Amino acid sequence: MTVNVLRIDIDRLLRRLLELGEVGAIEGTTGCARLALTDEDKAGRDLVRSWMEELGLDITTDGLGNVVATMPGFDPALAPVMTGSHIDTVGTGGRYDGNLGVLAGLEVIETILTSGRALQRPLAVGWFTDEEGARFPPDMLGSLVYVGGMPLEEALEITDRDGFSVGDELDRIGYRGTAPIPGRIPHAFVELHIEQGPVLEDEDITIGVVEGVQGISWTELTLIGQSCHAGTTPMRLRHDPGYVAADITTFVRRLTCELGGTQVATVGSVTLTPNLVNVVPSRAVMIVDLRNTDDEILQQAETRFRGHVAQVADVEGVGVETRTLARFEPVAFDSRVIDIVEQCARGRGLSSKRMPSGAGHDAQMFARICPTAMIFTKSVNGISHNVTEFTEPDDLEAGANVLLDVMLELVTREF
Amino acid sequence: MTVNVLRIDIDRLLRRLLELGEVGAIEGTTGCARLALTDEDKAGRDLVRSWMEELGLDITTDGLGNVVATMPGFDPALAPVMTGSHIDTVGTGGRYDGNLGVLAGLEVIETILTSGRALQRPLAVGWFTDEEGARFPPDMLGSLVYVGGMPLEEALEITDRDGFSVGDELDRIGYRGTAPIPGRIPHAFVELHIEQGPVLEDEDITIGVVEGVQGISWTELTLIGQSCHAGTTPMRLRHDPGYVAADITTFVRRLTCELGGTQVATVGSVTLTPNLVNVVPSRAVMIVDLRNTDDEILQQAETRFRGHVAQVADVEGVGVETRTLARFEPVAFDSRVIDIVEQCARGRGLSSKRMPSGAGHDAQMFARICPTAMIFTKSVNGISHNVTEFTEPDDLEAGANVLLDVMLELVTREF
Repeated sequence: MTVNVLRIDIDRLLRRLLELGEVGAIEGTTGCARLALTDEDKAGRDLVRSWMEELGLDITTDGLGNVVATMPGFDPALAPVMTGSHIDTVGTGGRYDGNLGVLAGLEVIETILTSGRALQRPLAVGWFTDEEGARFPPDMLGSLVYVGGMPLEEALEITDRDGFSVGDELDRIGYRGTAPIPGRIPHAFVELHIEQGPVLEDEDITIGVVEGVQGISWTELTLIGQSCHAGTTPMRLRHDPGYVAADITTFVRRLTCELGGTQVATVGSVTLTPNLVNVVPSRAVMIVDLRNTDDEILQQAETRFRGHVAQVADVEGVGVETRTLARFEPVAFDSRVIDIVEQCARGRGLSSKRMPSGAGHDAQMFARICPTAMIFTKSVNGISHNVTEFTEPDDLEAGANVLLDVMLELVTREF
Repeated sequence: MTVNVLRIDIDRLLRRLLELGEVGAIEGTTGCARLALTDEDKAGRDLVRSWMEELGLDITTDGLGNVVATMPGFDPALAPVMTGSHIDTVGTGGRYDGNLGVLAGLEVIETILTSGRALQRPLAVGWFTDEEGARFPPDMLGSLVYVGGMPLEEALEITDRDGFSVGDELDRIGYRGTAPIPGRIPHAFVELHIEQGPVLEDEDITIGVVEGVQGISWTELTLIGQSCHAGTTPMRLRHDPGYVAADITTFVRRLTCELGGTQVATVGSVTLTPNLVNVVPSRAVMIVDLRNTDDEILQQAETRFRGHVAQVADVEGVGVETRTLARFEPVAFDSRVIDIVEQCARGRGLSSKRMPSGAGHDAQMFARICPTAMIFTKSVNGISHNVTEFTEPDDLEAGANVLLDVMLELVTREF
């Protein structure tokens, strides 16, 4: 490979990250809030589109507001090598989550344009509506619809908590376009994203070579017991849903130790009623989050978890209502694209590590329709979805240069 | 004993319980709300005082609003045999908690008066201000001050959440009296109260012979971890205070099994921050409630609990801030009065069981200054501090008849 004679312009990339981060900025912090299809999101979209226009790219907007900018290749019949991510944020977002993938993609294209190099295939960079799902569920909505995973009409009717629909909000901000849905199938897709976790920092590795996305299983348990006085009720007469919730929490931790590998389990939400010091709760509502890259092991985890819940609730005399809040199978990225990411990191002399993504990303939707992988770069303290989200400029530069190399390499490959 | 020729009038007692329960009634329920020194409490006080006046009793009100009605004995130098409880309630109270002890005491006196029987010693029935502590902490305030456990001036300055003081509220409702504090030392004290627990009902026993009050240890733990993404953070890099809280909750349950006896442990309050499904919490605040009738074992429980907290928090890399919210030593009632309660229950042909009180009561304050015990009667489903609090009329009658017999017996005893 000889692609690494080109280098992205880190100052230009940082300037754009900063400028976009100032749209919807949260005062007194380096964070920002641009929930999907709000005025702030529109302002962010307008800014990024203006940069795309400055580069003379072909810009299309589809019926869900997904925007794709394409640098033509000299063979117009060929499908583009595509990158992209999202520019919507959560309510307390940072400057990097999503934004990096879009602006690094733009930076890659500008670097190649500036170099005067002509490519056989088009290169494209897109942003996809409502990746966060923080305003309109589900998350990754735009890329889901782009790849044909949900009918456009269904997506347009999704409403936020205040009853505003995706369709009406797209019209309001002027981003309901006419490009066809499902969108054009790329030759290959690669996304650069911050890790949103601590692994790269912990192991002092620059580039995460993302092999796939963990499967996710969210189960809400409503545990119904018998409220009683903490002083006057002997232990043998208790039906304590708070105790059952605690027992389940420690069980799923033990389960991760026993299953090992990439299995993670989290109980981030527990609500006791009435939540008073001297009252055994009448009710506990908890959500258990199980994830694994291997669906077979994830199913094992779910089975053992359900078995334990039934057993401990039965012994305590507590009723259980179970609701599945989410269930996504793991996504495996394309081994050929994964190899390219790894080789390009090595080519730049960067340390790298194959790893799963614990969070969902637009790339996992593209994995349904074309060879796909992802590049991770460090998150300081593993923090994201938080105004303190940060990645060092050196790491941003490394990630964007790898993206550059991977895209150029993908142009030359046949799948 | 020949005292059981007398019987209380259950219809009169029920009528008064009902009438008092209608003061501050909570619409659509059989519950009521008469927080201490509110307008509703004043109305309840006025009603009960009117009944005391109808019986021609000597009524005194002390500087904290404790009201005592005395039926004179023929030897005015002798200290009274006293009973009593409280007529304030929690915000969602029932008709029986406290009220039963006051109105049954009044019923005992009326029964004796009606019988024409003259006693050597006075009999007295009192109600004590703010037993619940639901408006002004601590609970059992009135009886604490009556027995000299807190200076009157200190008690008068206690304020509620809105800044109103005990002293000002006593003046406002016209219940700051002139009887001396500390109050007159009774010859003996006995209190009838609903169990507020499920033991009597569970074992189908009519009378609880209360041997003492459990010691109470409340510890608030603030567990400080590191918030992170539930998907992207491997288990080995987590510092999860929610997991630590769950582990502690299951530990204190195991501790009760190991220590056995009357040891109880409750985690009724747990609050995770930010309490979101896919975020490992940054913080968990929990309160651990440990109780035992034996202070030595309670201290063992506390020591093992603290040791476990330190260990599990250390392993997980979670910080701990500890605050003692309450620590009361167990109270042992007088064995002679306990024996009398047991004998009087047997004398009525009622099943009985020696047991501790898991909740605090005014009687535990009187135990500091005179021979004291308590009589428990069943709580349906063990429920109290709730509008569904209920005790069957037969059980109320049994409890009040035992109170009658115990008071008559105490008149004849020398201690």
